[in-house]
Amino acid sequence: MVRRAIPDIVVGRLPIYLRALSFLLAEGRQITSSQELGDRLGISSAQIRKDLSHFGEFGKQGTGYDISFLYDQLRQILKVDGMWEVALVGAGNLGQAIADYGGFAGKGFVITAIFDNEPAKIGSPMGIDNIIVQNVNELAETIRKRDIKVGIIATPAQDAQAVARTMVDAGVKAILNYAPITITVPSSVRVQYIDPVVGLQRMTYYL
Amino acid sequence: MVRRAIPDIVVGRLPIYLRALSFLLAEGRQITSSQELGDRLGISSAQIRKDLSHFGEFGKQGTGYDISFLYDQLRQILKVDGMWEVALVGAGNLGQAIADYGGFAGKGFVITAIFDNEPAKIGSPMGIDNIIVQNVNELAETIRKRDIKVGIIATPAQDAQAVARTMVDAGVKAILNYAPITITVPSSVRVQYIDPVVGLQRMTYYL
Repeated sequence: MVRRAIPDIVVGRLPIYLRALSFLLAEGRQITSSQELGDRLGISSAQIRKDLSHFGEFGKQGTGYDISFLYDQLRQILKVDGMWEVALVGAGNLGQAIADYGGFAGKGFVITAIFDNEPAKIGSPMGIDNIIVQNVNELAETIRKRDIKVGIIATPAQDAQAVARTMVDAGVKAILNYAPITITVPSSVRVQYIDPVVGLQRMTYYL
Repeated sequence: MVRRAIPDIVVGRLPIYLRALSFLLAEGRQITSSQELGDRLGISSAQIRKDLSHFGEFGKQGTGYDISFLYDQLRQILKVDGMWEVALVGAGNLGQAIADYGGFAGKGFVITAIFDNEPAKIGSPMGIDNIIVQNVNELAETIRKRDIKVGIIATPAQDAQAVARTMVDAGVKAILNYAPITITVPSSVRVQYIDPVVGLQRMTYYL
């Protein structure tokens, strides 16, 4: 398998498929089809078959996909069959909501370090795992010591770039940015934005 | 223009283009190309040209796109050149973070009503516009009275479906769901999920 040959846009759809498969699994289903997945996701069945064909043969002609098998395969392909430690910076309302988020479990990620610059927050437990909030000046050292590769930025916009730089310098390779600002990182580092505006704008077209 | 002919997946990319264009505008730029947009977004320039060609001729061969013009056109196409009122349900940490979010301004949306079921929260001002939190039992009436078409769900998972049903029954046509659960709505209603897991999983493939 030549991984570099897979277009970004195809890789970007795999988590969506994984999410749909996890919903189907939760519903107790065993078999699905590219048609059903497509209907649920608003993606053509041909596109789904083409996307998945980059990675191998997952379905048998006429019998559809074994949901559990495809789910496991996609988790391996996306490297989320293990557990990535995540450093979260920002322990305000948003950071707290993220630390409390029940959706990470079983999806490949666990927040193991939380940082803020407010004295009132530092030293307090936060989130479903009661992580003690650390001073953000310990961010670089903690990332290096634990070899953390994934970061989440939930700071005000004006702090996001500095936090990103510290994360990257210390070894983070993937950043999920909630701050409403674009951040600049070396091309070897991935950034994804969580932006409610994009989600809303995808829908107003149809109103 | 036959709007129904545009695939969902193309419509789904327009907010991403709009976002990239707004970043370019903020940088003071005037002209861009499908190549530059593609490089920034990890989408092929051919795909971008093809997507935009569904809606008309935006660029002149060899001279690129006028950023400001394309930005305005995409805003019109996505119907975010005006202002949609948004009802937010859930005034916990997440709801507060959303109400405080500085990224909605100028993007077509304004949160004008916030609801919760906790007596301690009801009646208090919240967010950048100091909206008074209402009792969630006023949700349906408020949506009907103000003809609100867009809702955001920031409740615990177990409340999300009931809130979605109330919203839809009262006339909401587009729901942005932060709760880590799938919600079922009539096919005439759009739902988008804000799921940090999807953002994270898009990146781990490359680690």
